[in-house]
Amino acid sequence: MQPSPSAVPPAPRAVAAVRYELLTLGDELLLGLTANGHLTFIGSQLGRRGALLQRNVTLTDEADAIAAQFRESWARADVVITTGGLGPTCDDRTRDAVAAVLGRRLVHDPAVEAAIEERFSRIGRKMTPNNLKQAQVFEGGEVLANANGTAPGLWVEQGGRVLVMLPGPPNELQPMFLGQVVPRLAARGLLRDREAYVQLRTAGIGESALETRLQPIFDRAGPGLSVAFCAHQGAVDLRLSSPVGSLDEAAVEAVAAECAGLLGDDVVSRGHDTLAKVCADLLRAQEKRLAVAETATGGLLAQAFTESCGACKFFAGGVVACTNDTQSQLLDIPECLLLQHGAASEEAAVAMATGASDTLGADYALAITGFAGAAETGRGGSPVGTIYVGLLTPGGVWAKKLSYPGPRGTIKARAVNAALDWLRRELLRVARGEVTPVRRAATM
Amino acid sequence: MQPSPSAVPPAPRAVAAVRYELLTLGDELLLGLTANGHLTFIGSQLGRRGALLQRNVTLTDEADAIAAQFRESWARADVVITTGGLGPTCDDRTRDAVAAVLGRRLVHDPAVEAAIEERFSRIGRKMTPNNLKQAQVFEGGEVLANANGTAPGLWVEQGGRVLVMLPGPPNELQPMFLGQVVPRLAARGLLRDREAYVQLRTAGIGESALETRLQPIFDRAGPGLSVAFCAHQGAVDLRLSSPVGSLDEAAVEAVAAECAGLLGDDVVSRGHDTLAKVCADLLRAQEKRLAVAETATGGLLAQAFTESCGACKFFAGGVVACTNDTQSQLLDIPECLLLQHGAASEEAAVAMATGASDTLGADYALAITGFAGAAETGRGGSPVGTIYVGLLTPGGVWAKKLSYPGPRGTIKARAVNAALDWLRRELLRVARGEVTPVRRAATM
Repeated sequence: MQPSPSAVPPAPRAVAAVRYELLTLGDELLLGLTANGHLTFIGSQLGRRGALLQRNVTLTDEADAIAAQFRESWARADVVITTGGLGPTCDDRTRDAVAAVLGRRLVHDPAVEAAIEERFSRIGRKMTPNNLKQAQVFEGGEVLANANGTAPGLWVEQGGRVLVMLPGPPNELQPMFLGQVVPRLAARGLLRDREAYVQLRTAGIGESALETRLQPIFDRAGPGLSVAFCAHQGAVDLRLSSPVGSLDEAAVEAVAAECAGLLGDDVVSRGHDTLAKVCADLLRAQEKRLAVAETATGGLLAQAFTESCGACKFFAGGVVACTNDTQSQLLDIPECLLLQHGAASEEAAVAMATGASDTLGADYALAITGFAGAAETGRGGSPVGTIYVGLLTPGGVWAKKLSYPGPRGTIKARAVNAALDWLRRELLRVARGEVTPVRRAATM
Repeated sequence: MQPSPSAVPPAPRAVAAVRYELLTLGDELLLGLTANGHLTFIGSQLGRRGALLQRNVTLTDEADAIAAQFRESWARADVVITTGGLGPTCDDRTRDAVAAVLGRRLVHDPAVEAAIEERFSRIGRKMTPNNLKQAQVFEGGEVLANANGTAPGLWVEQGGRVLVMLPGPPNELQPMFLGQVVPRLAARGLLRDREAYVQLRTAGIGESALETRLQPIFDRAGPGLSVAFCAHQGAVDLRLSSPVGSLDEAAVEAVAAECAGLLGDDVVSRGHDTLAKVCADLLRAQEKRLAVAETATGGLLAQAFTESCGACKFFAGGVVACTNDTQSQLLDIPECLLLQHGAASEEAAVAMATGASDTLGADYALAITGFAGAAETGRGGSPVGTIYVGLLTPGGVWAKKLSYPGPRGTIKARAVNAALDWLRRELLRVARGEVTPVRRAATM
């Protein structure tokens, strides 16, 4: 993603004007049985490369409705992407409906049939005849190979427009989109071949404070700079671009570098790395291990680290405690401490972090306790949304009290992000040699 | 949900023919920054009450696009529901765009203004003038009070059609939809006032095996019975209804009861209760406590219980272990056992369950270990997807080996469901007195 003066990107203005529509097919989406992850995935992948998806229509597997909606979208858009409806079962009618609107023949592709047969034989099963339907491809179109399933994707260009048909399972669609669709779109100038903006992820600073701090830099850059903020659960992404093209890539990069310099440790990452990913990378680089202990977030903090493969390198483990008993037993917390201060207190957060570090033999430890939901109110008079975070590092152990409004899920997500951000900042200080490790007398 | 012969439901056929369309507004959805949870929520709530959402269109906050799409949907549908675009900021243009298409005036509602002002004063802030926009309501329409935010919902009936406009935040939209929209729709015969089908959730039996076992019952019930299956991660929901009305509610209930009788413990719940909810209820009823220990699922098993408020009554806590060290330290597992059998083995699963129960003082314990992702392969030669579940009950402790295909997320979800289902079946056996508690010599 470093700017290269020799590689001239496609004019960003042209890409921003390309009209994309996404048709997601399936009653399971309309019945709310499955979340529409294709919208999230394809929308964000297009957005990153300079195109705003104009419209997403989710509709039933009914052939007439598919044909009518496709006709409308095809008349309006430059690129139409469909998902689902390419499988072998009789309710997969998308291919025929779309072919009729395009006035294009479907033909049997022996190579696709061979690939499907090969796939079946590899898992020791015989291909049933209904699978042959998946070898029907558009005459004059291209076939997008499916490494993770039987139904290939289809690519057709007609009348200056592009149609892309993708299989429904996310583990088939996503690699196909990134590996085969994005490069084809970029080669035709319909999508940028790199990120359309420079993104700085920040944490610990609100959207308006961020804007106020950076405004002098934006002013100096002039009106050609486009600035967008995107806030989510205590983190704010800053996106810099120059859609009218008056600033070249190097100039936008320079603005981003100036912002990053001013923000210092408030910058989590350049690009898309999450708080958890950045913490994991810092821990790996320092060859240190982390332990977590949580009550109010019920496993969400541990999940932040174990979602990715290979967490065992730096993640020692976690304890999800619910009651005072559990905390005492697992983490060697004196019961008198919990009785005196309460299980939701700064003292308890410190004891949890210390206990997790000692019990699990970790160099760093994070603890979260507090009240995330209505059932937990009343104890000690703290209102819902009161959260205590404990942090143990080689330099010491601390706790802080936080308070979040909103529903239970929001409180939990913000508590996890606040804890991760605190850990990240301390890891950065340690990496810079600003922290002198101390022997913790109490636990040695 | 018990059938009452005196209460005649609205004719189900009429409701199934009502055409619903949902317009979800917001660039954050099209850019993939936020998942479209409104589709999931509204789609499932309509589906449960006999209506299949016909179409969901997600589009930008651009006034012309909103007006054009609303005109199209309004011409086609009986009920149009919009979400988002009702807030105070300048990009909230939905209300004006829709009013123009309807040819209906927006008028200032003093009661709404007073409610907004009251809300601001309660949180100690002064209402800014842009908030007044939210007091603009349709002349002759109804206002849906918002207990959790400032923008009220709007309800308009015109030309035999219904328009419902809902605010975007889920914690505002969801109670408004259930408390005010559903009853209004039901009163007009546009939605059933109760579930449109009888649902039996099953676990531990595949879709085709389920169908084969129940087919004789379906055959006896005749062609008026509609049967639908919905499989998700090791659980299959069976939905019975009579859309053409040839079977009355009592007859469908009788079929469901016959199916439930034949399936026995394969039935998780009648309705919508999840595996975790059923386990929680059984544990509460038996006044027993559960502990969990997990490696491959990284906190997902603990999350299944802590997602709901009040888990502390029955959930003692959980341990998320990543390395052999952690397991040994937290759960008192002999290192020699892990060295001999591996941390992913039936022996380790038994030791984890026993250790979790002992350490946390719980009556029941679940343990999950194994290989969910590529980074974990190669150890001991087990392929990805090999999972070991351990279960400790008052009657003993066991482990079993399972194997799942698919991507990491699927393997984790299926492993958690398999563990929960095993616990549920044992809790049922204990509740029936089929299990004799034994003293576990090894751990006493």
